[in-house]
Amino acid sequence: MKASQFLISTLKEAPADAEVASHRLMMRAGMIKKLGAGIYTYMPMGLRVIRKVEAIVREEMDRAGAVECTMPVIQPAELWQETGRFDKMGPELLRIKDRHDRDFVVQPTSEEVVTDIARQELRSYKQLPKNLYQIQTKFRDERRPRFGLMRGREFIMKDAYSFDRDVAAAKKSYEAMAQAYRRIFDRFGLRYRAVAADSGAIGGDLSEEFQVIAATGEDAIVYCPDSDYAANMEKAEALAPSHARPAAARPLQRVPTPGKSTCADVAQLLGVPLQSTVKSLVLATDRANEAGEAAGAQLWLLLLRGDHDMNEVKVGKVPGLDAGFRFATVPEIVAHFGSKPGYLGPIGLEQPLKVVADREVALMADWICGANEEDFHLTGVNWGRDLPEPDAVADIRNVVEGDPSPDGRGRLAIERGIEVGHVFYLGTKYSRAMNATFLDESGKPQLMEMGCYGIGITRLPAAAIEQNHDERGIVWPDAIAPFTIVVCPIGMDRSSEVRAAAEKLHEELAALGVDVMLDDRGERPGAMFADWELVGVPHRIVVSDRGLKEGHLEYQHRRDSAATKVPVAGVVDFLRSRLKP
Amino acid sequence: MKASQFLISTLKEAPADAEVASHRLMMRAGMIKKLGAGIYTYMPMGLRVIRKVEAIVREEMDRAGAVECTMPVIQPAELWQETGRFDKMGPELLRIKDRHDRDFVVQPTSEEVVTDIARQELRSYKQLPKNLYQIQTKFRDERRPRFGLMRGREFIMKDAYSFDRDVAAAKKSYEAMAQAYRRIFDRFGLRYRAVAADSGAIGGDLSEEFQVIAATGEDAIVYCPDSDYAANMEKAEALAPSHARPAAARPLQRVPTPGKSTCADVAQLLGVPLQSTVKSLVLATDRANEAGEAAGAQLWLLLLRGDHDMNEVKVGKVPGLDAGFRFATVPEIVAHFGSKPGYLGPIGLEQPLKVVADREVALMADWICGANEEDFHLTGVNWGRDLPEPDAVADIRNVVEGDPSPDGRGRLAIERGIEVGHVFYLGTKYSRAMNATFLDESGKPQLMEMGCYGIGITRLPAAAIEQNHDERGIVWPDAIAPFTIVVCPIGMDRSSEVRAAAEKLHEELAALGVDVMLDDRGERPGAMFADWELVGVPHRIVVSDRGLKEGHLEYQHRRDSAATKVPVAGVVDFLRSRLKP
Repeated sequence: MKASQFLISTLKEAPADAEVASHRLMMRAGMIKKLGAGIYTYMPMGLRVIRKVEAIVREEMDRAGAVECTMPVIQPAELWQETGRFDKMGPELLRIKDRHDRDFVVQPTSEEVVTDIARQELRSYKQLPKNLYQIQTKFRDERRPRFGLMRGREFIMKDAYSFDRDVAAAKKSYEAMAQAYRRIFDRFGLRYRAVAADSGAIGGDLSEEFQVIAATGEDAIVYCPDSDYAANMEKAEALAPSHARPAAARPLQRVPTPGKSTCADVAQLLGVPLQSTVKSLVLATDRANEAGEAAGAQLWLLLLRGDHDMNEVKVGKVPGLDAGFRFATVPEIVAHFGSKPGYLGPIGLEQPLKVVADREVALMADWICGANEEDFHLTGVNWGRDLPEPDAVADIRNVVEGDPSPDGRGRLAIERGIEVGHVFYLGTKYSRAMNATFLDESGKPQLMEMGCYGIGITRLPAAAIEQNHDERGIVWPDAIAPFTIVVCPIGMDRSSEVRAAAEKLHEELAALGVDVMLDDRGERPGAMFADWELVGVPHRIVVSDRGLKEGHLEYQHRRDSAATKVPVAGVVDFLRSRLKP
Repeated sequence: MKASQFLISTLKEAPADAEVASHRLMMRAGMIKKLGAGIYTYMPMGLRVIRKVEAIVREEMDRAGAVECTMPVIQPAELWQETGRFDKMGPELLRIKDRHDRDFVVQPTSEEVVTDIARQELRSYKQLPKNLYQIQTKFRDERRPRFGLMRGREFIMKDAYSFDRDVAAAKKSYEAMAQAYRRIFDRFGLRYRAVAADSGAIGGDLSEEFQVIAATGEDAIVYCPDSDYAANMEKAEALAPSHARPAAARPLQRVPTPGKSTCADVAQLLGVPLQSTVKSLVLATDRANEAGEAAGAQLWLLLLRGDHDMNEVKVGKVPGLDAGFRFATVPEIVAHFGSKPGYLGPIGLEQPLKVVADREVALMADWICGANEEDFHLTGVNWGRDLPEPDAVADIRNVVEGDPSPDGRGRLAIERGIEVGHVFYLGTKYSRAMNATFLDESGKPQLMEMGCYGIGITRLPAAAIEQNHDERGIVWPDAIAPFTIVVCPIGMDRSSEVRAAAEKLHEELAALGVDVMLDDRGERPGAMFADWELVGVPHRIVVSDRGLKEGHLEYQHRRDSAATKVPVAGVVDFLRSRLKP
């Protein structure tokens, strides 16, 4: 490819709304162009990256035995009504009416359509297992699209769906996909982790996220440096402490804490470690009578150590809270506790409520909590002596750095990640809703066991940039660079030798199938180098008059601090040795 | 590819709503699956064809110097309001409101978005010419989607847009695209014609349609077997007859024609050739006063020979009708002519109206037309003697078979075609509406000259099938067949020799890069052959025990009536010689 035939449009400044590096750099490098909030044109430079991502994903999906199809972007509402998602999904689901006033949606994902295909096409156990995938435009009407391709509204996703005859076969399909994903992410040349994720109502452990490691990632990833353990924050278990609860050593005391409504403030005021305080969170579950009418709220008091954060997914698994919960309102709290939030605790309440203690809190002694009276806390609180044992003890907190690894093989560390892939065992959630059955050996209809597997094709380049950039621009891994090599001739207009050498090298490399760019725009060296460093082409060859006279070209990898002189005659072999196979 | 890993789902019967061969066969071959009216999933077998079409188009577009990008499917309304198309386009334009109640459209085409990119990115004459294209999902909310992929609502289109500094450069870009299209359609292996098309308000001759020849095509294509002339019906000119108008030979007579309201009926009743009758069509143009208020309709009487059909595009170019016209209503006609339609004519009208005669009619003598009285016609009508010369004489009819070719080199023939591509010079229509300018050498802003170039990626396979099928199914050209060769082993389960030979051949061909399918499903020969004949794989190799014992395999092209025995050792070379390069 020659630059004069391509569309290169680099910018000195990124637009003001570009908050993260990948967004800034993709805009500055002319890879994407904003059309509306969360809606981007993939410009020629960006599309090349996306196509390479697609090609790797497609190759590995095919190798894993998945079969590609393409489902419609605009889908009739009927199937979405069969599963109830047409009504249940929020405004992320973009709904349309056509000219006949019939309801449609823009696909955010395609479980309904693929399950409809499966129930029609996969009629016998002999046709299973089957895995159908597509690489196709999706739309989710995010409330706050941001970060460029990281959280756009329109995006490209690879979504695959497996259909199996039973749970064991579905697990095999799931494992095959998890393996394929490892091959895919290995090939991208990115540092990533496959982390266990919560599988929601389905249960079981068959859900993994593929997270590209990046300091700017939106997700916290928990892992054990001494073992294979890795999970996302929602999933990572905080083990129960192995020690027994210490005996009570202090008396229960009411202490004034004027204006100190946070555990940190209270600990500082009292000169005690934050770990000796307990925070009280009040949740509510709404009850209905037999007629289904609202019958008042049941309140729940959750107790967490002052330095710990609540984990909503874990809370959602506590019996009684597993059908849905909400935070109590301030009026509900004041009515129940006689105090506003900030000074709440489990002691001295007139009306009953359910107390759920985090595993850590359940083993504490002499702790500090609110006195249910504004500007007062209690110190020296002890289970059994000052209040009854909690109604439930559960893991309801996020793990923190240094917690023991759930696999018992070290301590946990935490880093940030960007979710770019997800494999998920669905069970019969969709096949049951849509009656997708096959006939088994005995001719009896059985529900298909399903899995779904996504890769954010257009998010991946953004994640790659978050992980690989410096102050000058992007540093692409070879596998997904828009061009692998850029040939930069200096003074091509003045020197026919430079022009001839540059064009010859360009042709030789192109003939070898190398993705090479010849910058024939006639830019000055500084501007030309800056452009390609911004764009992030990993390998650069400079052709200059002086170099040619001395018989060499200059090679520099995007990460190198200086150029290497390479004899003209050996440059193709040199480059081939540098390229990742 | 092995059949067991693929998704093959052939049907004995096509659904009742499949009216044309391509729709029936694509459904029966399991290439597409209907999700809603005009909305289809591209099933694995169909997607393979579409991908091959895309690949050929992409290669030739790149070779022609066009640069690929991908514009959003969901586009904010603002740009569409700039050109006025948001309001002007009918309900084909699918309009959406997002969660913030903002207007969006689903792209039916992308002139607005690409012009917006150009006005931002192409700032200098040095960056021109530039041609941007995409291969992307489109949606047009057709009132009556039909014929499967032929006239769907969601479809894939390749749309390219060229930007040039002046008309001469734009014509060069146009010609480059027209050439690229010829290469593309040559490569598809289809019989097609590039026909001149009407370029509407833009004028000039820079509009060509690429029509795949098929008896079931919706479009009539006019061509001259003795020359290069080819045009679509809208465009093809009917030359003025070269003879002079004969002298009047008969008297004007009023004859009873009870119930005979068509030219054909009248000619039959009177025992004269249809060519001596003249049909009267009444159009109206709506007038406005200076304040822009409706000020009544001006009626127009169009006169065409009884055997000729009106050409709306040509009528739309007659001065006075070129700002838009409509057919007059029956009340308007009765009020003006004193007769209902079927008995109208230009003679004896009390109120004035504009008379437009087709070139042919203007030179007729002794003709027959309605008497403006129910159940009566006039015979022996003559210009000058019985009525004044027409207000205008123009080519307002469709050509018919045998008309002289406009290039003066023979007579016209007519065949049916399916439009699969269109190249079009746009001029400054969009750049003017959106103020898309570049700076010329003197630093002055100039409007860009544009062209647009479309190929119906998903319509192409349907057109290919209309042209290439028989009673057993589809007959794909090699270039776009879902698989080039199918290996059909007979009794693979029983014979390890058959299995080994089939798998070896499959591997050898796959290693050569041939798109080969091994049917390892274990179907009986009859069902297996029927499936692949329906799917239309062009080359078939049968591996049988008996054949292997005799040292041969059986080759049969989809168009062959019988198989050819090929020695086992030479089969790969034999096949390579049979494949189109």
